[in-house]
Amino acid sequence: MESVKDLLRLGARVDPVIEEYLLRDADPEFHEAILYPIRTGGKRLRPALTLASALAVGGRVEDALPAAAAVELAHNYSLIFDDIIDHSELRRGKPTLWKKYGISTAILVAVHYRESIAQALGDTRDPRTFSSIMARTLKLLVEGERLDVLFEQSGRGDEPYVVERRRSVVTLDDYLDMVYKKTGALIETACVFGALSGDGGAREVEALRRYGANLGIAFQVGDDIIDIFGREEVTGKKVGKDIEEHKLGNVVVILALEELSQSEGEELRSILRAERVGREELERAIDIISKTRARSRAEELRRRYVQEALQALSVLPSSEGREMLRALAEFVASREY
Amino acid sequence: MESVKDLLRLGARVDPVIEEYLLRDADPEFHEAILYPIRTGGKRLRPALTLASALAVGGRVEDALPAAAAVELAHNYSLIFDDIIDHSELRRGKPTLWKKYGISTAILVAVHYRESIAQALGDTRDPRTFSSIMARTLKLLVEGERLDVLFEQSGRGDEPYVVERRRSVVTLDDYLDMVYKKTGALIETACVFGALSGDGGAREVEALRRYGANLGIAFQVGDDIIDIFGREEVTGKKVGKDIEEHKLGNVVVILALEELSQSEGEELRSILRAERVGREELERAIDIISKTRARSRAEELRRRYVQEALQALSVLPSSEGREMLRALAEFVASREY
Repeated sequence: MESVKDLLRLGARVDPVIEEYLLRDADPEFHEAILYPIRTGGKRLRPALTLASALAVGGRVEDALPAAAAVELAHNYSLIFDDIIDHSELRRGKPTLWKKYGISTAILVAVHYRESIAQALGDTRDPRTFSSIMARTLKLLVEGERLDVLFEQSGRGDEPYVVERRRSVVTLDDYLDMVYKKTGALIETACVFGALSGDGGAREVEALRRYGANLGIAFQVGDDIIDIFGREEVTGKKVGKDIEEHKLGNVVVILALEELSQSEGEELRSILRAERVGREELERAIDIISKTRARSRAEELRRRYVQEALQALSVLPSSEGREMLRALAEFVASREY
Repeated sequence: MESVKDLLRLGARVDPVIEEYLLRDADPEFHEAILYPIRTGGKRLRPALTLASALAVGGRVEDALPAAAAVELAHNYSLIFDDIIDHSELRRGKPTLWKKYGISTAILVAVHYRESIAQALGDTRDPRTFSSIMARTLKLLVEGERLDVLFEQSGRGDEPYVVERRRSVVTLDDYLDMVYKKTGALIETACVFGALSGDGGAREVEALRRYGANLGIAFQVGDDIIDIFGREEVTGKKVGKDIEEHKLGNVVVILALEELSQSEGEELRSILRAERVGREELERAIDIISKTRARSRAEELRRRYVQEALQALSVLPSSEGREMLRALAEFVASREY
């Protein structure tokens, strides 16, 4: 746990760097809205991974700060749009950007974030390489989000693209492909950016890439478990939000459907397809899921990805950075609900 | 006129390059939505400026194609968001992207466009410099759009940021600042990209920068005149859209208000402030404006910016590229309604 705290303390070092890029070429009247997403919280997990990865290959924190800033900005950039796409009104217990300022302002802030990312990437060790990796990562993220939306079973009646292409069947492989793109790719890039910033060798870069990709998937699997079985007092998140949002793209739901009898499976599906999921339906859905081994199988899946991540680390020499990465993976493996 | 046609033919050479970047890292199922904004038209004016600018400094078209693609992608990227922000349902006579596919898909396509821009910039003569110029340009564009929205006199009741910061007074200087950012900066960048791609010297780059910035403002002033006085049969655009959208950020309206008596000025303002601008109010507004010298003064202003643009070209040696740029400026100066 001490090392996890070290890691998050490390991540916080990116804040002034982020703000510097965000305020560049910005009108003072725009500052408040621009800083809102960053100042309303966030654990800075991704930049922490970048900085720890730089340390793990023998590099220096200072050399990895622009790359770390770019990664955290990319994360927030995607959240601003996710909240618009999902009509989410709260994040980290506060109004989302679009809810607070309006949708036009949220879009303009998001575009401004993307240009701050570009400016940060210009200060990395190799701007062309870093920019190209980021471009590919954000295209993957778009694809992951597109799939996540297509995995919804209802809603978006005013969105012809989604209505016409919805998936009624989502396999575990479909799910893993989607979450690698939606969550894994940016966490992978966070680690790769650190390794490259620290001038790591090809074997080290590949090890940290593998660590990040696997950790990212484990992280999302954990989020899915928490969404269904978390306790609001502990997590601060609303239970069953994925079910309310008609999402079939939650690993617990997918694993439950694999096991359920036809009639109970159909009942669960019909709740996901309902126009509005009320409290009663939500409880019934969680009830149905709880009868299966979906929870323990999801936890097993998470452990497997964490194991992969830990194994990837083994090629790196022992160091403070590697220790932080190891501790983080253990933490993700055992995150409580 | 022949040279203007040559210029637009030149611009069309960018299309396969644009599509190559757009389809990179894109799922086949996503192709149709990604290509929609590009395939529904557009004059390719901006990439034409890039390619002609490269020729004007003695460079080759092929060397400027990635930069030209980036510029046209940036233009379309901004249009996708503009249409969402302005709730516009038609563009170039076809449904806008969000109207056709839904808002989530439009946002995801736009984000994908931005990454295609990054990939194109990676293939330019100097990725770091081009990326940095593009980042600054798009931040300016965001600021121009922010101001344009704040210059609206009504609407957006659900957007607290706008409602609280609206401008009730907009001077000609405020206007020129806004349109340089909203329209001038990207056209300026189109020319600078061409000059840099063609390995132009500092004096040539500066000349083309000045040409582009001035042409861009002239272009927007022309658009504003067309918006108020255009004939739909000729332009294919709805007359008075700016007034319907409550925009004080139209040069004709601003110049009219400078001249009008207090009572007629107040009447025009009250139409812009009305919750809904009907056909009758629209006609009355255009009537009031027509009594002033706003139209001829706007045309005079446009001529002045075109003159500035033409003068900037004079430092360049005579060439096919320069001739196209000259012809385009003349065309912008005399564009009919």
